[in-house]
Amino acid sequence: MFERPSVKTAAYAGDRTIQIADAEPTAPEAGQVQVAVAYTGLCGTDLHILHGNMDARVARPLVFGHEMSGTIAAVGDGVDGWTVGDAVTVMPLAWDGTCPACLAGNSHICQNLDFIGIDSPGSLQGLWNVPAETLVRLPAGIRLDHAALVEPVAVAVHDVRRSELQPGQKAVVIGGGPIGVLIATVARHFGGDVVVIELDPQRRAQVQELGFATLDPRAVDQVAWVEQWSGGAGADVVFEVSGAAVAVLGATALAKVRGTIVVVAIHPTPREVDLQRVFWRELRLLGARVYQRVDFETAVELVADGVVPADALITRIVALADTQDAFADLEAGRAMKILVDVAGAR
Amino acid sequence: MFERPSVKTAAYAGDRTIQIADAEPTAPEAGQVQVAVAYTGLCGTDLHILHGNMDARVARPLVFGHEMSGTIAAVGDGVDGWTVGDAVTVMPLAWDGTCPACLAGNSHICQNLDFIGIDSPGSLQGLWNVPAETLVRLPAGIRLDHAALVEPVAVAVHDVRRSELQPGQKAVVIGGGPIGVLIATVARHFGGDVVVIELDPQRRAQVQELGFATLDPRAVDQVAWVEQWSGGAGADVVFEVSGAAVAVLGATALAKVRGTIVVVAIHPTPREVDLQRVFWRELRLLGARVYQRVDFETAVELVADGVVPADALITRIVALADTQDAFADLEAGRAMKILVDVAGAR
Repeated sequence: MFERPSVKTAAYAGDRTIQIADAEPTAPEAGQVQVAVAYTGLCGTDLHILHGNMDARVARPLVFGHEMSGTIAAVGDGVDGWTVGDAVTVMPLAWDGTCPACLAGNSHICQNLDFIGIDSPGSLQGLWNVPAETLVRLPAGIRLDHAALVEPVAVAVHDVRRSELQPGQKAVVIGGGPIGVLIATVARHFGGDVVVIELDPQRRAQVQELGFATLDPRAVDQVAWVEQWSGGAGADVVFEVSGAAVAVLGATALAKVRGTIVVVAIHPTPREVDLQRVFWRELRLLGARVYQRVDFETAVELVADGVVPADALITRIVALADTQDAFADLEAGRAMKILVDVAGAR
Repeated sequence: MFERPSVKTAAYAGDRTIQIADAEPTAPEAGQVQVAVAYTGLCGTDLHILHGNMDARVARPLVFGHEMSGTIAAVGDGVDGWTVGDAVTVMPLAWDGTCPACLAGNSHICQNLDFIGIDSPGSLQGLWNVPAETLVRLPAGIRLDHAALVEPVAVAVHDVRRSELQPGQKAVVIGGGPIGVLIATVARHFGGDVVVIELDPQRRAQVQELGFATLDPRAVDQVAWVEQWSGGAGADVVFEVSGAAVAVLGATALAKVRGTIVVVAIHPTPREVDLQRVFWRELRLLGARVYQRVDFETAVELVADGVVPADALITRIVALADTQDAFADLEAGRAMKILVDVAGAR
């Protein structure tokens, strides 16, 4: 029989509290693989969970976390193609395969999607059983701390792919946080000409250090700037990553005739949109959510090839026991990306 | 030299007033054609002009009107392919050909578009000079009263084409006014399965008489209805034609995963949009404005072939002198489409 020592877990326990606990790992079921988690990145959604904003959706305690890297520790029955020791990341989506969205080929936004790490246990645990089909192979030599960025990079790849940005086109990214920087990075890598709009001077400086043009919307007339930058046309694509109502209202003024606005951020309440401008310029406003396998595989390449400035993005790596403090830093805007060293707690 | 008796014109004179006047026609300039206008339809935009909502844009007095039919009365120098007596309608757009939108192939939404009948004189005049390239040929045998509907039909064709509705797909049309009915007609003709949402019982009855399913949103849970109708998926396309804020807010709940919402109506102020739903279902929200030549040519066919229920849509035909009263009827919702008999005033 399968046997292991207990492992540490970090769980959202309600009331803005992270609970660190010991758990007895269970053997992977048929079709599953057990992953020895190396690193787990903390993201904005995790922060929403911690704040209780998603209490209607999540179980408590919830071992959360969905940005990760690791190696295979055990392989369940009926799983082919994977071997203990393989370096992997996980695309944390489990779809039902039978709903209208799945049948139409959009299983990544299955109408009954199980987002692993939100709707079921995530990667803030030393040993994590996941369906084998969620595994994405990591190439030899990739650093596992860097590989914990693959999931947010896949979000950015999906957003840029969905925008249909073409080489030489102009893209405005509103919001210079982790996802904004990754979208800017991917858009530039695919040939786009990018500017990032960011209010916070420190974030703006970080974005500039990565070689991007930036705008302070309080200091510059962004509409006039973008118009001049684009030869009077407007931007081909605007990525709304800030989540701010004022950014949504302003985004339509930045886009060219038949330009695209991609709604990346989560807007918990309805937002005012300038539909007159949408009509007048025949704009296209697209929602973009999570990723498809092709996005994940592209993201692995971009991390492995050093396209993603992983060291600049990873502000620090903390011990599992310090997860609560790490969230406090994220909340206060004192970090871009914080990784939890899950392996170190095993 | 060119000589003619004076003709009657109807112009917006400011202060919600239509001025009927005599005018001396001028000969068509080089590149122009003079059209003897038969009928001019009155539309919502004309009503906006009459209400003073577009005073910042329009000259006064403005001979307006842009939905029309007629025959060629004279041909200017350098115009080939047209002969006196040819039956025509006019696609009332004049673009500069040099702005970024034009250079990108979107001349119908030129950044400096002259919408003829709004930005320059329109068809509420017995003899109307227009650039030859705006002419669209009418087939032999088409009724000129019916042909005055080509312009709004072209709007509907453009909206449906832009939506990329496929045969067998489900379309919801929010708003059962003239444009809503035309969109429903075109969507059905192209193989769509259509339902029209309309508050007003009389309009709903008219739409039903044309063979469309309708919903009274005050009596039926429209989200549940559409979900059941679409086998749990949601509508492939939602056309927002009502202009109502509540309709915009509700439209996103009706669309399937990766479904399309086409913004047809003019929304003079920003509207709340459920961006959470846009994100969650990866919806696509598209602005659709005016038409391209292919839309106009398709519209001519649909009118000529009797696909468009022209007689049902044309509530009545009035004399030019009664244009002001006709607008009062439109304003009060007492008419679908009113045509002005411009030829009768010549």
